[in-house]
Amino acid sequence: MIGVDWGTSSFRAYRMAADGRVIDRTSSPTGILFVESGRFAEVLRRAILPWTNAGERRVLLSGMIGSRQGWVEAPYLACPAGTSDLAGATIPVPYDGAEVRLVPGLTFEDSGVPEVMRGEETQIIGALADFGAGGVACMPGSHSKWVRVEGGRITGFSTFMTGEAFAAFSGHTILGRMMKADAPADPEALRRGLARSADDGGLLRHLFGVRTLGLFGRLSETSAASYLSGLLLGHEVRAALAAAPDAGPVVLIGDTKLCALYADAITFCGSVVRIAKGEAAPAGLARIAAEVRWGQSEG
Amino acid sequence: MIGVDWGTSSFRAYRMAADGRVIDRTSSPTGILFVESGRFAEVLRRAILPWTNAGERRVLLSGMIGSRQGWVEAPYLACPAGTSDLAGATIPVPYDGAEVRLVPGLTFEDSGVPEVMRGEETQIIGALADFGAGGVACMPGSHSKWVRVEGGRITGFSTFMTGEAFAAFSGHTILGRMMKADAPADPEALRRGLARSADDGGLLRHLFGVRTLGLFGRLSETSAASYLSGLLLGHEVRAALAAAPDAGPVVLIGDTKLCALYADAITFCGSVVRIAKGEAAPAGLARIAAEVRWGQSEG
Repeated sequence: MIGVDWGTSSFRAYRMAADGRVIDRTSSPTGILFVESGRFAEVLRRAILPWTNAGERRVLLSGMIGSRQGWVEAPYLACPAGTSDLAGATIPVPYDGAEVRLVPGLTFEDSGVPEVMRGEETQIIGALADFGAGGVACMPGSHSKWVRVEGGRITGFSTFMTGEAFAAFSGHTILGRMMKADAPADPEALRRGLARSADDGGLLRHLFGVRTLGLFGRLSETSAASYLSGLLLGHEVRAALAAAPDAGPVVLIGDTKLCALYADAITFCGSVVRIAKGEAAPAGLARIAAEVRWGQSEG
Repeated sequence: MIGVDWGTSSFRAYRMAADGRVIDRTSSPTGILFVESGRFAEVLRRAILPWTNAGERRVLLSGMIGSRQGWVEAPYLACPAGTSDLAGATIPVPYDGAEVRLVPGLTFEDSGVPEVMRGEETQIIGALADFGAGGVACMPGSHSKWVRVEGGRITGFSTFMTGEAFAAFSGHTILGRMMKADAPADPEALRRGLARSADDGGLLRHLFGVRTLGLFGRLSETSAASYLSGLLLGHEVRAALAAAPDAGPVVLIGDTKLCALYADAITFCGSVVRIAKGEAAPAGLARIAAEVRWGQSEG
Protein backbone atom coordinates (compact mmCIF):
# COMPACT_ATOMS: atom_id res chain seq x y z
CA MET A 1 0.00 0.00 0.00
CA ILE A 2 0.88 3.67 -0.20
CA GLY A 3 0.80 5.92 2.82
CA VAL A 4 0.95 9.72 2.64
CA ASP A 5 1.65 12.08 5.51
CA TRP A 6 0.39 15.33 3.97
CA GLY A 7 0.73 18.33 6.20
CA THR A 8 0.62 22.10 6.01
CA SER A 9 4.13 22.53 4.67
CA SER A 10 5.29 19.13 3.46
CA PHE A 11 4.24 16.00 1.57
CA ARG A 12 5.79 12.64 2.46
CA ALA A 13 4.75 9.46 0.67
CA TYR A 14 5.76 5.87 1.43
CA ARG A 15 5.37 2.62 -0.45
CA MET A 16 5.00 -0.08 2.14
CA ALA A 17 4.94 -3.86 2.35
CA ALA A 18 2.07 -5.66 4.05
CA ASP A 19 4.11 -5.85 7.26
CA GLY A 20 4.58 -2.08 7.34
CA ARG A 21 8.14 -2.07 6.09
CA VAL A 22 8.94 1.04 3.97
CA ILE A 23 10.00 -0.12 0.50
CA ASP A 24 10.32 3.28 -1.14
CA ARG A 25 9.67 6.90 -0.26
CA THR A 26 9.38 10.36 -1.73
CA SER A 27 8.84 13.81 -0.30
CA SER A 28 8.39 17.37 -1.49
CA PRO A 29 7.54 20.80 -0.11
CA THR A 30 4.02 20.53 -1.57
CA GLY A 31 2.23 20.91 1.75
CA ILE A 32 -1.39 21.96 1.47
CA LEU A 33 -0.50 25.64 1.88
CA PHE A 34 1.56 25.41 -1.30
CA VAL A 35 -0.90 23.53 -3.51
CA GLU A 36 -3.68 25.37 -5.33
CA SER A 37 -7.09 24.10 -4.35
CA GLY A 38 -8.19 21.56 -6.97
CA ARG A 39 -4.64 20.41 -7.77
CA PHE A 40 -4.29 17.87 -4.94
CA ALA A 41 -5.03 14.85 -7.20
CA GLU A 42 -2.39 16.01 -9.65
CA VAL A 43 0.27 16.40 -6.94
CA LEU A 44 -0.52 12.95 -5.57
CA ARG A 45 -0.61 11.32 -9.00
CA ARG A 46 2.80 12.64 -9.97
CA ALA A 47 4.36 11.57 -6.67
CA ILE A 48 3.08 8.01 -6.60
CA LEU A 49 3.12 7.26 -10.36
CA PRO A 50 6.02 4.77 -10.22
CA TRP A 51 4.23 2.85 -7.48
CA THR A 52 0.79 2.77 -9.12
CA ASN A 53 2.54 1.72 -12.34
CA ALA A 54 4.00 -1.12 -10.28
CA GLY A 55 0.49 -2.16 -9.23
CA GLU A 56 -0.23 -0.36 -5.95
CA ARG A 57 -3.96 0.42 -5.72
CA ARG A 58 -4.52 1.48 -2.10
CA VAL A 59 -3.56 4.93 -0.81
CA LEU A 60 -4.11 6.18 2.73
CA LEU A 61 -3.64 9.88 3.53
CA SER A 62 -3.26 11.53 6.91
CA GLY A 63 -2.67 15.09 8.12
CA MET A 64 -3.97 18.54 7.23
CA ILE A 65 -4.96 17.24 3.79
CA GLY A 66 -8.21 16.27 5.55
CA SER A 67 -8.86 19.78 6.86
CA ARG A 68 -11.18 22.46 5.53
CA GLN A 69 -8.20 23.90 3.63
CA GLY A 70 -7.25 20.48 2.25
CA TRP A 71 -8.59 18.14 -0.41
CA VAL A 72 -11.70 16.67 1.22
CA GLU A 73 -12.74 17.63 4.75
CA ALA A 74 -12.83 14.60 7.04
CA PRO A 75 -14.96 15.25 10.13
CA TYR A 76 -13.04 14.91 13.39
CA LEU A 77 -13.49 11.65 15.28
CA ALA A 78 -13.99 12.00 19.06
CA CYS A 79 -11.61 10.48 21.62
CA PRO A 80 -11.14 7.82 22.78
CA ALA A 81 -10.02 6.35 19.48
CA GLY A 82 -7.68 3.51 18.51
CA THR A 83 -6.51 1.90 15.31
CA SER A 84 -9.80 0.25 14.35
CA ASP A 85 -11.81 3.39 15.19
CA LEU A 86 -9.61 5.44 12.89
CA ALA A 87 -9.67 2.77 10.16
CA GLY A 88 -13.45 2.59 10.35
CA ALA A 89 -13.76 6.36 10.05
CA THR A 90 -11.52 6.83 7.01
CA ILE A 91 -13.33 8.58 4.20
CA PRO A 92 -13.05 8.03 0.46
CA VAL A 93 -11.44 10.64 -1.79
CA PRO A 94 -12.48 10.85 -5.48
CA TYR A 95 -9.53 9.64 -7.56
CA ASP A 96 -9.04 7.64 -10.76
CA GLY A 97 -6.82 4.58 -10.79
CA ALA A 98 -6.49 3.85 -7.10
CA GLU A 99 -8.61 3.75 -3.97
CA VAL A 100 -7.68 6.78 -1.91
CA ARG A 101 -8.89 7.17 1.68
CA LEU A 102 -8.24 9.74 4.33
CA VAL A 103 -7.63 9.23 8.07
CA PRO A 104 -9.82 11.62 10.10
CA GLY A 105 -8.34 13.92 12.70
CA LEU A 106 -9.34 13.64 16.33
CA THR A 107 -11.13 15.97 18.67
CA PHE A 108 -11.28 16.03 22.45
CA GLU A 109 -13.25 18.29 24.74
CA ASP A 110 -11.87 19.53 28.04
CA SER A 111 -13.24 22.33 30.26
CA GLY A 112 -15.59 23.45 27.52
CA VAL A 113 -12.86 24.04 24.96
CA PRO A 114 -12.31 21.65 22.03
CA GLU A 115 -8.94 20.27 21.04
CA VAL A 116 -8.09 19.10 17.52
CA MET A 117 -5.33 17.15 15.78
CA ARG A 118 -4.75 15.99 12.22
CA GLY A 119 -1.85 13.68 11.48
CA GLU A 120 -0.61 13.23 15.05
CA GLU A 121 -3.23 10.49 15.66
CA THR A 122 -1.61 8.43 12.90
CA GLN A 123 1.86 8.93 14.39
CA ILE A 124 0.61 7.82 17.81
CA ILE A 125 -0.81 4.64 16.27
CA GLY A 126 2.59 4.07 14.66
CA ALA A 127 4.32 4.47 18.02
CA LEU A 128 1.90 2.45 20.16
CA ALA A 129 4.61 -0.08 21.00
CA ASP A 130 6.43 2.65 22.93
CA PHE A 131 3.59 3.12 25.40
CA GLY A 132 2.98 -0.32 26.85
CA ALA A 133 -0.29 -0.21 28.79
CA GLY A 134 -0.44 3.56 28.57
CA GLY A 135 1.38 6.83 28.94
CA VAL A 136 1.80 10.30 27.57
CA ALA A 137 3.35 11.45 24.30
CA CYS A 138 4.82 14.85 23.59
CA MET A 139 4.82 15.81 19.92
CA PRO A 140 6.82 19.02 19.44
CA GLY A 141 5.92 21.47 16.69
CA SER A 142 4.75 25.02 16.21
CA HIS A 143 1.62 23.77 17.99
CA SER A 144 2.88 20.96 20.17
CA LYS A 145 0.58 18.16 21.32
CA TRP A 146 0.59 16.21 24.56
CA VAL A 147 -1.35 13.01 24.05
CA ARG A 148 -2.70 10.55 26.60
CA VAL A 149 -2.67 6.90 25.46
CA GLU A 150 -4.44 4.10 27.33
CA GLY A 151 -4.87 0.50 26.19
CA GLY A 152 -3.88 1.28 22.62
CA ARG A 153 -6.30 4.19 22.27
CA ILE A 154 -5.88 7.94 22.35
CA THR A 155 -7.98 9.09 25.29
CA GLY A 156 -7.25 12.81 25.36
CA PHE A 157 -4.79 15.50 24.36
CA SER A 158 -3.89 19.15 24.64
CA THR A 159 -2.21 21.68 22.39
CA PHE A 160 0.34 24.34 23.31
CA MET A 161 1.14 27.24 20.97
CA THR A 162 4.72 27.33 22.17
CA GLY A 163 6.54 27.30 18.83
CA GLU A 164 4.32 29.94 17.30
CA ALA A 165 4.53 32.04 20.48
CA PHE A 166 8.32 31.92 20.25
CA ALA A 167 8.18 33.16 16.65
CA ALA A 168 5.73 35.94 17.53
CA PHE A 169 7.67 37.15 20.58
CA SER A 170 11.08 37.00 18.95
CA GLY A 171 9.91 38.42 15.64
CA HIS A 172 7.25 40.94 16.58
CA THR A 173 7.84 42.35 20.07
CA ILE A 174 10.46 44.44 21.81
CA LEU A 175 12.09 41.15 22.94
CA GLY A 176 13.39 40.57 19.40
CA ARG A 177 15.53 43.68 19.75
CA MET A 178 17.42 41.96 22.57
CA MET A 179 18.41 39.07 20.28
CA LYS A 180 21.03 38.48 17.68
CA ALA A 181 19.41 36.72 14.73
CA ASP A 182 20.61 33.17 14.03
CA ALA A 183 22.74 32.92 17.16
CA PRO A 184 23.54 29.28 17.92
CA ALA A 185 21.58 27.64 20.74
CA ASP A 186 22.93 28.40 24.23
CA PRO A 187 22.15 25.45 26.53
CA GLU A 188 23.00 27.41 29.69
CA ALA A 189 20.58 30.24 28.75
CA LEU A 190 17.95 27.64 27.91
CA ARG A 191 18.32 26.21 31.42
CA ARG A 192 18.09 29.67 32.98
CA GLY A 193 14.79 30.20 31.15
CA LEU A 194 13.54 26.75 32.19
CA ALA A 195 14.41 27.51 35.81
CA ARG A 196 12.72 30.92 35.69
CA SER A 197 9.51 29.33 34.41
CA ALA A 198 9.06 27.69 37.83
CA ASP A 199 8.85 31.06 39.63
CA ASP A 200 5.67 32.85 40.60
CA GLY A 201 4.36 35.57 38.35
CA GLY A 202 3.35 33.73 35.21
CA LEU A 203 4.55 33.77 31.64
CA LEU A 204 3.51 37.35 30.79
CA ARG A 205 5.71 38.60 33.59
CA HIS A 206 8.62 36.23 32.96
CA LEU A 207 8.78 37.38 29.35
CA PHE A 208 9.69 40.91 30.38
CA GLY A 209 12.83 39.52 32.00
CA VAL A 210 14.27 38.88 28.53
CA ARG A 211 14.31 42.64 28.14
CA THR A 212 15.49 43.68 31.59
CA LEU A 213 18.23 41.05 31.87
CA GLY A 214 19.49 42.31 28.52
CA LEU A 215 19.26 45.97 29.57
CA PHE A 216 21.38 45.21 32.63
CA GLY A 217 23.97 43.26 30.66
CA ARG A 218 23.04 39.98 32.34
CA LEU A 219 21.77 38.22 29.21
CA SER A 220 23.71 38.61 25.97
CA GLU A 221 22.20 39.13 22.54
CA THR A 222 23.43 35.71 21.54
CA SER A 223 21.76 34.02 24.54
CA ALA A 224 18.42 35.83 24.65
CA ALA A 225 16.63 33.58 22.14
CA SER A 226 17.63 30.44 24.06
CA TYR A 227 16.47 32.04 27.33
CA LEU A 228 13.10 32.92 25.75
CA SER A 229 12.86 29.38 24.39
CA GLY A 230 13.54 28.02 27.89
CA LEU A 231 10.84 30.24 29.42
CA LEU A 232 8.21 29.12 26.93
CA LEU A 233 9.20 25.43 26.96
CA GLY A 234 9.28 25.49 30.76
CA HIS A 235 5.76 26.89 30.96
CA GLU A 236 4.51 24.30 28.49
CA VAL A 237 6.26 21.33 30.05
CA ARG A 238 5.35 22.20 33.65
CA ALA A 239 1.67 22.65 32.75
CA ALA A 240 1.60 19.43 30.73
CA LEU A 241 3.36 17.37 33.41
CA ALA A 242 1.06 18.76 36.10
CA ALA A 243 -1.88 17.42 34.08
CA ALA A 244 -0.35 13.92 33.89
CA PRO A 245 1.47 13.37 37.19
CA ASP A 246 1.29 9.58 37.02
CA ALA A 247 1.98 9.02 33.35
CA GLY A 248 5.50 7.63 33.56
CA PRO A 249 8.14 8.46 30.95
CA VAL A 250 7.08 10.98 28.30
CA VAL A 251 7.32 9.46 24.82
CA LEU A 252 8.75 11.99 22.38
CA ILE A 253 7.59 11.73 18.77
CA GLY A 254 8.68 14.00 15.94
CA ASP A 255 11.53 15.93 14.41
CA THR A 256 14.86 14.74 15.84
CA LYS A 257 16.19 18.19 16.71
CA LEU A 258 12.97 19.38 18.33
CA CYS A 259 12.69 16.11 20.25
CA ALA A 260 16.21 16.62 21.63
CA LEU A 261 15.28 20.15 22.76
CA TYR A 262 12.08 18.91 24.43
CA ALA A 263 13.96 16.00 26.00
CA ASP A 264 16.27 18.53 27.71
CA ALA A 265 13.31 20.61 28.86
CA ILE A 266 11.27 17.68 30.17
CA THR A 267 14.28 16.20 31.97
CA PHE A 268 15.07 19.61 33.50
CA CYS A 269 11.47 19.84 34.72
CA GLY A 270 11.79 16.52 36.52
CA SER A 271 10.32 13.85 34.29
CA VAL A 272 11.82 11.02 32.29
CA VAL A 273 11.67 10.82 28.50
CA ARG A 274 11.85 8.13 25.88
CA ILE A 275 12.34 8.95 22.20
CA ALA A 276 9.95 6.90 20.05
CA LYS A 277 11.68 4.27 17.95
CA GLY A 278 11.29 4.17 14.19
CA GLU A 279 9.21 6.38 11.94
CA ALA A 280 5.84 6.98 13.48
CA ALA A 281 3.92 8.31 10.46
CA PRO A 282 4.48 5.47 7.95
CA ALA A 283 4.12 2.89 10.72
CA GLY A 284 0.77 4.40 11.72
CA LEU A 285 -0.45 4.62 8.13
CA ALA A 286 0.40 0.95 7.58
CA ARG A 287 -1.31 -0.14 10.79
CA ILE A 288 -4.48 1.80 10.09
CA ALA A 289 -4.47 0.65 6.44
CA ALA A 290 -4.35 -2.95 7.64
CA GLU A 291 -7.72 -2.43 9.35
CA VAL A 292 -9.44 -0.41 6.64
CA ARG A 293 -12.14 -2.30 4.77
CA TRP A 294 -10.82 -1.47 1.32
CA GLY A 295 -13.08 -1.83 -1.69
CA GLN A 296 -16.29 -1.00 0.25
CA SER A 297 -16.70 2.37 -1.42
CA GLU A 298 -14.79 3.43 -4.49
CA GLY A 299 -13.82 7.07 -4.67
CA MET B 1 7.10 75.21 37.51
CA ILE B 2 6.84 73.19 34.35
CA GLY B 3 6.36 69.42 34.41
CA VAL B 4 6.81 67.20 31.39
CA ASP B 5 5.65 63.60 31.05
CA TRP B 6 7.76 62.54 28.05
CA GLY B 7 7.22 58.97 26.98
CA THR B 8 7.93 56.73 24.04
CA SER B 9 5.06 57.95 21.90
CA SER B 10 3.84 61.19 23.43
CA PHE B 11 4.92 64.46 25.02
CA ARG B 12 2.70 66.14 27.64
CA ALA B 13 3.74 69.36 29.33
CA TYR B 14 2.05 71.19 32.19
CA ARG B 15 2.48 74.64 33.66
CA MET B 16 1.70 74.33 37.35
CA ALA B 17 1.14 76.58 40.33
CA ALA B 18 3.12 76.03 43.55
CA ASP B 19 0.22 73.99 44.96
CA GLY B 20 0.32 71.58 41.99
CA ARG B 21 -2.72 73.04 40.22
CA VAL B 22 -2.40 72.77 36.41
CA ILE B 23 -2.55 76.30 34.95
CA ASP B 24 -1.91 75.41 31.33
CA ARG B 25 -1.04 72.37 29.27
CA THR B 26 0.18 71.26 25.87
CA SER B 27 0.76 67.90 24.25
CA SER B 28 2.06 66.51 20.98
CA PRO B 29 2.96 63.15 19.43
CA THR B 30 6.67 63.94 19.82
CA GLY B 31 7.46 60.93 22.00
CA ILE B 32 11.13 59.98 22.11
CA LEU B 33 10.70 57.47 19.28
CA PHE B 34 9.64 60.33 17.00
CA VAL B 35 12.34 62.85 17.86
CA GLU B 36 15.75 62.69 16.22
CA SER B 37 18.51 62.29 18.76
CA GLY B 38 19.95 65.73 19.49
CA ARG B 39 16.64 67.56 18.86
CA PHE B 40 15.13 67.07 22.32
CA ALA B 41 16.04 70.59 23.53
CA GLU B 42 14.43 72.08 20.45
CA VAL B 43 11.18 70.14 20.93
CA LEU B 44 11.03 71.17 24.58
CA ARG B 45 11.86 74.82 23.86
CA ARG B 46 9.11 75.18 21.29
CA ALA B 47 6.53 73.54 23.56
CA ILE B 48 7.21 75.59 26.69
CA LEU B 49 8.14 78.92 25.04
CA PRO B 50 4.99 80.80 26.18
CA TRP B 51 5.62 79.69 29.75
CA THR B 52 9.33 80.52 29.87
CA ASN B 53 8.45 83.86 28.27
CA ALA B 54 6.08 84.32 31.20
CA GLY B 55 8.95 83.69 33.63
CA GLU B 56 8.96 79.96 34.39
CA ARG B 57 12.53 78.78 35.05
CA ARG B 58 12.17 75.25 36.49
CA VAL B 59 11.39 72.23 34.34
CA LEU B 60 11.05 68.66 35.60
CA LEU B 61 10.93 65.77 33.12
CA SER B 62 9.82 62.19 33.72
CA GLY B 63 9.43 59.11 31.56
CA MET B 64 11.41 57.43 28.80
CA ILE B 65 13.16 60.72 28.07
CA GLY B 66 15.59 59.56 30.79
CA SER B 67 16.33 56.24 29.07
CA ARG B 68 19.28 55.23 26.94
CA GLN B 69 17.21 56.17 23.87
CA GLY B 70 16.23 59.52 25.40
CA TRP B 71 17.92 62.85 26.02
CA VAL B 72 20.19 62.10 28.99
CA GLU B 73 20.29 58.68 30.61
CA ALA B 74 19.27 58.83 34.27
CA PRO B 75 20.48 55.77 36.19
CA TYR B 76 17.69 53.76 37.79
CA LEU B 77 17.09 54.33 41.49
CA ALA B 78 16.52 51.18 43.57
CA CYS B 79 13.31 50.51 45.51
CA PRO B 80 12.14 51.38 48.08
CA ALA B 81 11.82 54.99 46.93
CA GLY B 82 9.49 57.85 47.85
CA THR B 83 9.07 61.47 46.87
CA SER B 84 12.22 62.79 48.52
CA ASP B 85 14.35 59.89 47.23
CA LEU B 86 13.22 60.64 43.68
CA ALA B 87 13.68 64.41 44.14
CA GLY B 88 17.18 63.85 45.50
CA ALA B 89 18.12 61.65 42.56
CA THR B 90 16.93 63.96 39.78
CA ILE B 91 19.70 64.75 37.33
CA PRO B 92 20.43 67.99 35.50
CA VAL B 93 19.93 68.28 31.75
CA PRO B 94 22.02 70.80 29.76
CA TYR B 95 19.65 73.54 28.58
CA ASP B 96 19.82 77.31 28.11
CA GLY B 97 17.32 79.60 29.76
CA ALA B 98 15.82 77.31 32.38
CA GLU B 99 16.91 74.70 34.88
CA VAL B 100 15.87 71.33 33.52
CA ARG B 101 16.03 68.19 35.65
CA LEU B 102 15.02 64.62 35.04
CA VAL B 103 13.30 62.17 37.43
CA PRO B 104 15.13 58.80 37.43
CA GLY B 105 13.30 55.58 36.76
CA LEU B 106 13.15 52.83 39.37
CA THR B 107 14.50 49.33 39.48
CA PHE B 108 13.55 46.41 41.67
CA GLU B 109 15.05 42.94 41.84
CA ASP B 110 12.96 39.84 42.44
CA SER B 111 14.00 36.17 41.99
CA GLY B 112 17.19 37.22 40.23
CA VAL B 113 15.44 39.18 37.50
CA PRO B 114 15.44 42.99 37.47
CA GLU B 115 12.35 45.11 36.95
CA VAL B 116 12.40 48.64 35.54
CA MET B 117 10.02 51.57 35.20
CA ARG B 118 10.34 55.11 33.86
CA GLY B 119 7.48 57.54 34.33
CA GLU B 120 5.22 55.29 36.37
CA GLU B 121 7.11 56.20 39.58
CA THR B 122 6.07 59.83 39.07
CA GLN B 123 2.43 58.85 38.53
CA ILE B 124 2.46 56.79 41.73
CA ILE B 125 3.79 59.78 43.66
CA GLY B 126 0.97 61.82 42.16
CA ALA B 127 -1.59 59.26 43.29
CA LEU B 128 -0.23 58.58 46.80
CA ALA B 129 -3.40 59.94 48.40
CA ASP B 130 -5.30 56.98 46.92
CA PHE B 131 -3.25 54.40 48.82
CA GLY B 132 -3.59 55.41 52.45
CA ALA B 133 -1.05 53.41 54.45
CA GLY B 134 -0.30 51.16 51.51
CA GLY B 135 -1.64 49.06 48.70
CA VAL B 136 -1.16 47.96 45.14
CA ALA B 137 -1.49 49.93 41.93
CA CYS B 138 -2.19 48.53 38.49
CA MET B 139 -0.96 50.71 35.64
CA PRO B 140 -2.24 49.32 32.33
CA GLY B 141 -0.25 49.73 29.14
CA SER B 142 1.50 47.68 26.50
CA HIS B 143 3.78 46.68 29.40
CA SER B 144 1.54 46.98 32.44
CA LYS B 145 2.97 47.55 35.90
CA TRP B 146 1.72 46.33 39.27
CA VAL B 147 3.25 48.47 41.97
CA ARG B 148 3.40 47.91 45.72
CA VAL B 149 3.19 51.10 47.83
CA GLU B 150 3.91 51.21 51.56
CA GLY B 151 4.13 54.31 53.75
CA GLY B 152 4.37 56.66 50.79
CA ARG B 153 7.17 54.74 49.10
CA ILE B 154 7.30 52.36 46.17
CA THR B 155 8.60 49.09 47.62
CA GLY B 156 8.42 46.78 44.62
CA PHE B 157 6.76 46.18 41.28
CA SER B 158 6.35 43.78 38.40
CA THR B 159 5.80 44.13 34.67
CA PHE B 160 3.50 42.09 32.44
CA MET B 161 3.86 42.15 28.64
CA THR B 162 0.11 41.68 28.21
CA GLY B 163 -0.61 44.50 25.76
CA GLU B 164 2.30 43.67 23.52
CA ALA B 165 1.47 39.96 23.71
CA PHE B 166 -2.06 40.75 22.55
CA ALA B 167 -0.69 42.67 19.57
CA ALA B 168 1.76 39.88 18.69
CA PHE B 169 -0.80 37.08 18.95
CA SER B 170 -3.56 38.90 17.12
CA GLY B 171 -1.26 40.33 14.46
CA HIS B 172 1.33 37.64 13.90
CA THR B 173 -0.07 34.19 14.68
CA ILE B 174 -2.77 31.92 13.33
CA LEU B 175 -5.11 33.38 15.99
CA GLY B 176 -5.37 36.61 14.00
CA ARG B 177 -7.07 34.68 11.20
CA MET B 178 -9.93 33.90 13.58
CA MET B 179 -10.58 37.62 14.17
CA LYS B 180 -12.37 40.35 12.33
CA ALA B 181 -10.22 43.47 12.46
CA ASP B 182 -11.66 46.42 14.37
CA ALA B 183 -14.64 44.51 15.74
CA PRO B 184 -16.14 46.34 18.72
CA ALA B 185 -15.34 44.94 22.18
CA ASP B 186 -17.55 42.01 23.21
CA PRO B 187 -17.89 42.02 27.02
CA GLU B 188 -19.36 38.50 27.11
CA ALA B 189 -16.39 37.07 25.14
CA LEU B 190 -14.01 38.99 27.40
CA ARG B 191 -15.62 37.29 30.41
CA ARG B 192 -15.35 33.88 28.74
CA GLY B 193 -11.62 34.46 28.26
CA LEU B 194 -11.25 35.68 31.84
CA ALA B 195 -13.02 32.57 33.12
CA ARG B 196 -10.93 30.26 30.95
CA SER B 197 -7.73 31.77 32.37
CA ALA B 198 -8.55 30.16 35.73
CA ASP B 199 -8.40 26.63 34.27
CA ASP B 200 -5.42 24.31 34.42
CA GLY B 201 -3.13 24.10 31.42
CA GLY B 202 -1.51 27.52 31.31
CA LEU B 203 -1.59 30.38 28.85
CA LEU B 204 0.15 28.60 25.95
CA ARG B 205 -2.59 25.99 25.98
CA HIS B 206 -5.48 28.39 26.55
CA LEU B 207 -4.39 30.42 23.53
CA PHE B 208 -5.07 27.53 21.19
CA GLY B 209 -8.72 27.63 22.26
CA VAL B 210 -9.13 30.88 20.31
CA ARG B 211 -8.53 28.79 17.20
CA THR B 212 -10.52 25.67 18.08
CA LEU B 213 -13.57 27.53 19.44
CA GLY B 214 -13.58 29.45 16.16
CA LEU B 215 -13.16 26.30 14.06
CA PHE B 216 -16.18 24.75 15.80
CA GLY B 217 -18.33 27.86 15.37
CA ARG B 218 -18.38 28.55 19.11
CA LEU B 219 -16.51 31.85 18.99
CA SER B 220 -17.33 34.33 16.25
CA GLU B 221 -14.82 36.40 14.30
CA THR B 222 -16.17 39.51 15.97
CA SER B 223 -15.72 38.06 19.48
CA ALA B 224 -12.34 36.36 19.17
CA ALA B 225 -10.24 39.43 19.93
CA SER B 226 -12.18 40.10 23.14
CA TYR B 227 -11.83 36.44 24.16
CA LEU B 228 -8.06 36.60 23.57
CA SER B 229 -7.92 39.84 25.55
CA GLY B 230 -9.80 38.15 28.40
CA LEU B 231 -7.38 35.19 28.39
CA LEU B 232 -4.32 37.44 28.58
CA LEU B 233 -5.78 39.87 31.11
CA GLY B 234 -6.98 36.97 33.24
CA HIS B 235 -3.51 35.42 33.32
CA GLU B 236 -1.95 38.77 34.24
CA VAL B 237 -4.50 39.71 36.89
CA ARG B 238 -4.58 36.28 38.56
CA ALA B 239 -0.78 36.17 38.79
CA ALA B 240 -0.58 39.74 40.10
CA LEU B 241 -3.32 39.26 42.68
CA ALA B 242 -1.74 36.00 43.88
CA ALA B 243 1.45 37.97 44.59
CA ALA B 244 -0.45 40.55 46.68
CA PRO B 245 -3.22 38.64 48.47
CA ASP B 246 -3.56 41.14 51.31
CA ALA B 247 -3.20 44.39 49.41
CA GLY B 248 -6.81 45.60 49.55
CA PRO B 249 -8.40 47.45 46.63
CA VAL B 250 -6.26 47.71 43.50
CA VAL B 251 -5.68 51.36 42.57
CA LEU B 252 -5.95 51.81 38.80
CA ILE B 253 -3.86 54.56 37.25
CA GLY B 254 -3.71 55.42 33.57
CA ASP B 255 -5.68 55.77 30.38
CA THR B 256 -9.43 55.90 31.13
CA LYS B 257 -10.43 53.24 28.61
CA LEU B 258 -7.68 50.79 29.59
CA CYS B 259 -8.47 51.35 33.27
CA ALA B 260 -12.11 50.48 32.65
CA LEU B 261 -11.05 47.25 30.89
CA TYR B 262 -8.71 46.32 33.74
CA ALA B 263 -11.36 47.24 36.30
CA ASP B 264 -13.68 44.67 34.71
CA ALA B 265 -10.92 42.06 34.64
CA ILE B 266 -9.81 42.63 38.24
CA THR B 267 -13.39 42.63 39.52
CA PHE B 268 -14.09 39.42 37.59
CA CYS B 269 -11.01 37.83 39.17
CA GLY B 270 -12.33 38.62 42.65
CA SER B 271 -10.67 41.79 43.81
CA VAL B 272 -11.92 45.32 44.37
CA VAL B 273 -10.69 48.30 42.37
CA ARG B 274 -10.48 52.02 42.85
CA ILE B 275 -9.75 54.36 39.94
CA ALA B 276 -7.14 56.97 40.96
CA LYS B 277 -8.56 60.47 41.23
CA GLY B 278 -7.11 63.37 39.25
CA GLU B 279 -4.19 63.36 36.89
CA ALA B 280 -1.34 61.34 38.32
CA ALA B 281 1.54 62.52 36.12
CA PRO B 282 1.34 66.31 36.67
CA ALA B 283 0.49 65.80 40.33
CA GLY B 284 3.58 63.64 40.75
CA LEU B 285 5.82 66.04 38.85
CA ALA B 286 4.64 68.91 41.07
CA ARG B 287 5.15 66.93 44.26
CA ILE B 288 8.65 65.78 43.31
CA ALA B 289 9.54 69.30 42.07
CA ALA B 290 8.55 70.68 45.46
CA GLU B 291 11.31 68.58 47.06
CA VAL B 292 14.01 69.14 44.45
CA ARG B 293 16.85 71.42 45.60
CA TRP B 294 16.70 73.69 42.57
CA GLY B 295 19.68 75.88 41.77
CA GLN B 296 22.27 73.44 43.18
CA SER B 297 23.63 72.50 39.76
CA GLU B 298 22.84 74.40 36.62
CA GLY B 299 22.58 72.35 33.45
